[in-house]
Amino acid sequence: MATIRQLVLLTVFLSTVSCTAPSDVDPLPSWGAGSSRDSIIEFVEVVTDRSSADYVPVDERIAVFDNDGTLWSEQPLYFQFYYALSQIEKAAPAHPEWLDQEPYKTALAGNRDDILALGTKGLVEIILATHSGMTNAEFRQSVQAWIASAEHPTTHRAYSQMVFQPMLELMDYLRANGFKVYIVSGGGVEFMRAFAADIYGVPPEQTIGSELGLEIESTEDGLVLRRLAEIDFVNDKAGKPVGIQRAVGRRPIFAFGNSDGDLQMLQWTVAGDGPSFAGIVHHTDADREWAYDRESHLGRLDKALDEGAERGWTIVDMRSEWSVIYPIEE
Amino acid sequence: MATIRQLVLLTVFLSTVSCTAPSDVDPLPSWGAGSSRDSIIEFVEVVTDRSSADYVPVDERIAVFDNDGTLWSEQPLYFQFYYALSQIEKAAPAHPEWLDQEPYKTALAGNRDDILALGTKGLVEIILATHSGMTNAEFRQSVQAWIASAEHPTTHRAYSQMVFQPMLELMDYLRANGFKVYIVSGGGVEFMRAFAADIYGVPPEQTIGSELGLEIESTEDGLVLRRLAEIDFVNDKAGKPVGIQRAVGRRPIFAFGNSDGDLQMLQWTVAGDGPSFAGIVHHTDADREWAYDRESHLGRLDKALDEGAERGWTIVDMRSEWSVIYPIEE
Repeated sequence: MATIRQLVLLTVFLSTVSCTAPSDVDPLPSWGAGSSRDSIIEFVEVVTDRSSADYVPVDERIAVFDNDGTLWSEQPLYFQFYYALSQIEKAAPAHPEWLDQEPYKTALAGNRDDILALGTKGLVEIILATHSGMTNAEFRQSVQAWIASAEHPTTHRAYSQMVFQPMLELMDYLRANGFKVYIVSGGGVEFMRAFAADIYGVPPEQTIGSELGLEIESTEDGLVLRRLAEIDFVNDKAGKPVGIQRAVGRRPIFAFGNSDGDLQMLQWTVAGDGPSFAGIVHHTDADREWAYDRESHLGRLDKALDEGAERGWTIVDMRSEWSVIYPIEE
Repeated sequence: MATIRQLVLLTVFLSTVSCTAPSDVDPLPSWGAGSSRDSIIEFVEVVTDRSSADYVPVDERIAVFDNDGTLWSEQPLYFQFYYALSQIEKAAPAHPEWLDQEPYKTALAGNRDDILALGTKGLVEIILATHSGMTNAEFRQSVQAWIASAEHPTTHRAYSQMVFQPMLELMDYLRANGFKVYIVSGGGVEFMRAFAADIYGVPPEQTIGSELGLEIESTEDGLVLRRLAEIDFVNDKAGKPVGIQRAVGRRPIFAFGNSDGDLQMLQWTVAGDGPSFAGIVHHTDADREWAYDRESHLGRLDKALDEGAERGWTIVDMRSEWSVIYPIEE
């Protein structure tokens, strides 16, 4: 009997053959003709071409994507903060003292600049207060209920409709070519896992993020995992290569980010021995999305923009290279 | 164009069909007729039967295996300690002071009981001294060189030939039925990853273990990850459910262990909502392997043996249920 692994290899082989054969189906329809599209396709064709010196076996085709600002929007606040604010609003009636107590007072007032001005200490307190104490399963249900009903304060879209259509196509294209696609987010891993399979097709075991401490607890229904009010791992900047190594155990060959928080992930990816691809989403479209880079409080893109330009990384000009930003609403 | 995911699902479906159809090929030839074999096959047939109330979708078929004592032997010392001792011997000529300095003096003398008597502090010092300081890539190469040439002190087999043939068959059987098989070891994750793909067919991203701290370092060749002399995570006892949740993001439905260090992993697995399987390897064969349980210093099986008996878990009597222990040597 053939093992699953053998059948998967056969499947991937057949799929690779069909992808490298001429096809009328455009795998990246929302990517306008441009250098980013060309560099992506050229890379994928080379690493999947068995006759190429740069051929990469399927097992090693690891692709990593930042989430906030790379797979979906991140303005005017990271979407995970909107989840946190919604939970504080929900709990506020039971906490009248919050009206005079920071950071809750500012969180409840809801002014974006004031919230950012709370600084790391205040923001961490908001996150811990709303993300810990419950079991992992309860937290997942809460996030799923929120994402199913909440809408973004300025676009009034569902958050799940603020994913970038060109990146959905890119992830599908990579998967069709034997890549294993991971999300590597500075956001909370269990927050991401609550919806990543639905909106990105990325399963929980391929979703890496920041982590709270967990403890096991014995209940009438058996052991459960409870979320602690302590940050166990920050999957950002230098933490991203560490988070990837811990979860994947391999260096990626393909990485996409959008900010200086992704710089080390990109640097580590291109420092591998074989072929590699580093991509950056440059937010240049104030009409259809947002335009920001070096001076932004969220998703600052400064050092990585310079290094990417110097080293010939693929820098996507959102305005000119993406014919569509968000999926067409049904 | 079909995505890889669709093709994999098709593959798994076809494979499932072929497995549930009558077949002359015995998937578990080294498992003698007995209750363990029956309970394994019954569980797998039920969760893969689409007409069963206990059917489990492929995505949720997560199986976890302890390593030491479950997938390979662990006596008279955990094999990872033999790697550590080999590295101390190798470095000893440059460290004449070790002849009078603990724990190196005892490590170099090589007496098993004296080494265990060093206690946690001494053993941790031996592990840190031999597992840190180098890059992850250098460490992997060192472990691979060791496992390719070292032999076990009493059986004189290669360590890779001291894996349990019945468990190799069980992992293949599960994979052929759409399970994703993980190793969940108290041993070091990068130690395991150096050979787990070769000897068990388990890729690095499905290998979970204890972790040292990692730091990124800039070199002429770009960023590398260096191993720190600090323990970051202990993937044992209550740490096992936490390690699984972090890496997989789902509760397993199938777990196998052999000691009290696996108890919480087994308890957490059977506390899920759907069907679940908990198995324990009971080392009862002093002739072909080792016989030990409640009083053993390594791999003590006491509480889990009681709880497993009470709750009807599958407890494998190695002596009577395994017709073969180790693979036939070529």
